[in-house]
Amino acid sequence: MTELILKNVRPMGGASTDIVIRNGRIAAIGAANTAGAAVEDGGGAIALPGLVEAHAHLDKTLWGMGWRRHQAGPSLEDKISTERRLRREWNIDPARQSARQVALCAAQGTTAIRSHVDIDTDQGLWCFEGVCATRERFAHVADIEIVAFPQSGLMVRPGTLELMDAALANGADVVGGLDPCGIDRDPKGQLDAIFALAQKHGKPIDIHLHEPDELGAFSMEMILERTRATGMQGKVTISHAFCLGMGDRARAAALTDRLAELDVAIATTAPASRPVPMAAEMRAAGVRLCAGSDGIRDTWGPYGNADMLERALFIGLRNNFRRDEDVEYALHICTRGGADVMELAGYGLAEGSFADIVLVQAETLAEAVAARPTRQLVLKRGRPVARDGKALFEVE
Amino acid sequence: MTELILKNVRPMGGASTDIVIRNGRIAAIGAANTAGAAVEDGGGAIALPGLVEAHAHLDKTLWGMGWRRHQAGPSLEDKISTERRLRREWNIDPARQSARQVALCAAQGTTAIRSHVDIDTDQGLWCFEGVCATRERFAHVADIEIVAFPQSGLMVRPGTLELMDAALANGADVVGGLDPCGIDRDPKGQLDAIFALAQKHGKPIDIHLHEPDELGAFSMEMILERTRATGMQGKVTISHAFCLGMGDRARAAALTDRLAELDVAIATTAPASRPVPMAAEMRAAGVRLCAGSDGIRDTWGPYGNADMLERALFIGLRNNFRRDEDVEYALHICTRGGADVMELAGYGLAEGSFADIVLVQAETLAEAVAARPTRQLVLKRGRPVARDGKALFEVE
Repeated sequence: MTELILKNVRPMGGASTDIVIRNGRIAAIGAANTAGAAVEDGGGAIALPGLVEAHAHLDKTLWGMGWRRHQAGPSLEDKISTERRLRREWNIDPARQSARQVALCAAQGTTAIRSHVDIDTDQGLWCFEGVCATRERFAHVADIEIVAFPQSGLMVRPGTLELMDAALANGADVVGGLDPCGIDRDPKGQLDAIFALAQKHGKPIDIHLHEPDELGAFSMEMILERTRATGMQGKVTISHAFCLGMGDRARAAALTDRLAELDVAIATTAPASRPVPMAAEMRAAGVRLCAGSDGIRDTWGPYGNADMLERALFIGLRNNFRRDEDVEYALHICTRGGADVMELAGYGLAEGSFADIVLVQAETLAEAVAARPTRQLVLKRGRPVARDGKALFEVE
Repeated sequence: MTELILKNVRPMGGASTDIVIRNGRIAAIGAANTAGAAVEDGGGAIALPGLVEAHAHLDKTLWGMGWRRHQAGPSLEDKISTERRLRREWNIDPARQSARQVALCAAQGTTAIRSHVDIDTDQGLWCFEGVCATRERFAHVADIEIVAFPQSGLMVRPGTLELMDAALANGADVVGGLDPCGIDRDPKGQLDAIFALAQKHGKPIDIHLHEPDELGAFSMEMILERTRATGMQGKVTISHAFCLGMGDRARAAALTDRLAELDVAIATTAPASRPVPMAAEMRAAGVRLCAGSDGIRDTWGPYGNADMLERALFIGLRNNFRRDEDVEYALHICTRGGADVMELAGYGLAEGSFADIVLVQAETLAEAVAARPTRQLVLKRGRPVARDGKALFEVE
């Protein structure tokens, strides 16, 4: 049954056409007979595939909780411990907060989310269970992947590994990790543990690696060695990977080549304040890139709005992209780049794909990134979930 | 005569009060008797002083001209020559385009603009005259300062100095300069010439300095030497000053101390892709900072929207500001920082100041920066010039 026809839309900024949606999928792209069908007039909007938020922390946003003054000190350790304290003090309920962020994501045209979710011996599985509830409740809004994430360290917090194991047995999709040297002080211990966990559950890995320069390069090598040894090519993502912005460009290039060889992907937020993996270098070497908002208005920092078109802009600004084809690549990172890392089946604007579609008024893809227009319409599996920048559903 | 009372507004995010406006100025701040007066209900909005765009290029935006694919190569020289060619080819009319950008600025709450305006032997005074016309036409919308800017070089283009001299005799407010080594290949020649021009016309100086590392440091020293020799303390601004982001931090700190000693201000765009002067270091040393959008959707690059709250966000992101007081300082740079550099008399939210006021819905100043809310109301000299994110006047 034809559910919906999007009239007068321009897939990826191309010529105006119609998109016929049937059973949640794109049945046809081309001039359509609208007799008897529900029709949405796109008004010449660009149609994009649903934006992909490939690095989020759904369990920790303060969105909707009123403005909170920032309390944490500058070190990573202090941000982690401040958050652990404030979770209970402020009642940062992971179910409620993740639902709010999913609504925000929908309003911005995001239809798939990979979320790291804190697991530690203080919170236990509270955060995981809260995000699981949101994932189930909003399955019709976004594909949500949960990374079991040892935010407070794994080796330094005995009991964490068992909690991660339980989460993976109960629906977590990805094994997380975090600064095996900087936070865990035992790179061999952490990395052996998480690769073993991934093997046990048959799940991919996504490791936060903030460690800079040679320390990060060392940890990255340890990750690469284990990727090869366990045959996990194509199944490992390194988030942030600041070490790839190191001053020794030859060293970074050699690491980049090994990432490509072992098909290890990089997730970036394109921060302005840190050395980062440069998108053009990753692309030239054949390393897959995806992107995310990271924390949105949480105890870590005040910024963020879940807009993945804005993230593409940040990628463009960080990488000094000016040419249209480069800006389009920044958008690619925030669409198909994320879909590839999440292994989303049926992603994209093609006949047979799922009808996860965003409409925006812009002349070109580059303009959509530069201007970040209000999302005119967001479809998930062919059904409207947001319109004119607002989610079509309520969260408390 | 009382012209307007802003009811229920929160100056700088403080407690709710009223602002009484009379003869274009703030007559009183405090609970007001509204009988017989025109009243605007602020609905608890934060009242900010008008945002200050302290580094713009009003003559070169492509805003409203349809999307144009980026043509320029990566070098500064290629961007300059590509622009010179496209100005005529695309008819980038400086009067029309600067008017469009002023309307955009007004919609974003900007009430004062320092604009560099290209002067060269190809364009002559075309750009200058166009922006002069806009300045006159929109004097009720924004204070516009014009920098006579030798974008294509001064020493390498004989005749440019005479054109700048003519512009300064005919209403240009500031003497511009540009990379005395990198572009002009004659630092002594350029800097002696522009300081002499400033002395002759009794005008301040604002020099673009993109030169990195030791080259930029050398040019900066040359600028500092002339600032002292000509007694121009407090009258010189260096825009960009990327060299202050140099690796040798001790060298950068020594230069920073000399900037403070000679009261040379820095204008920044807080770009994500370049080393930059760090705001906290400038602040600690006592160097005045202002900020601007730089080019907005022009032949140099596709980005920009004239939003100085977004610029404050970029400053926050670039400088890794997370604490509320730091984010507030980023906003200060985009308000009073710019006003100080432009020497705007009567600036600020105080009784007696000009009623250049922006209302935004946010709980705190830091939220106003993080969220960049639609400008609810923008007043220039007490008169509404924009509402709900839209200018209240038309430009062709």
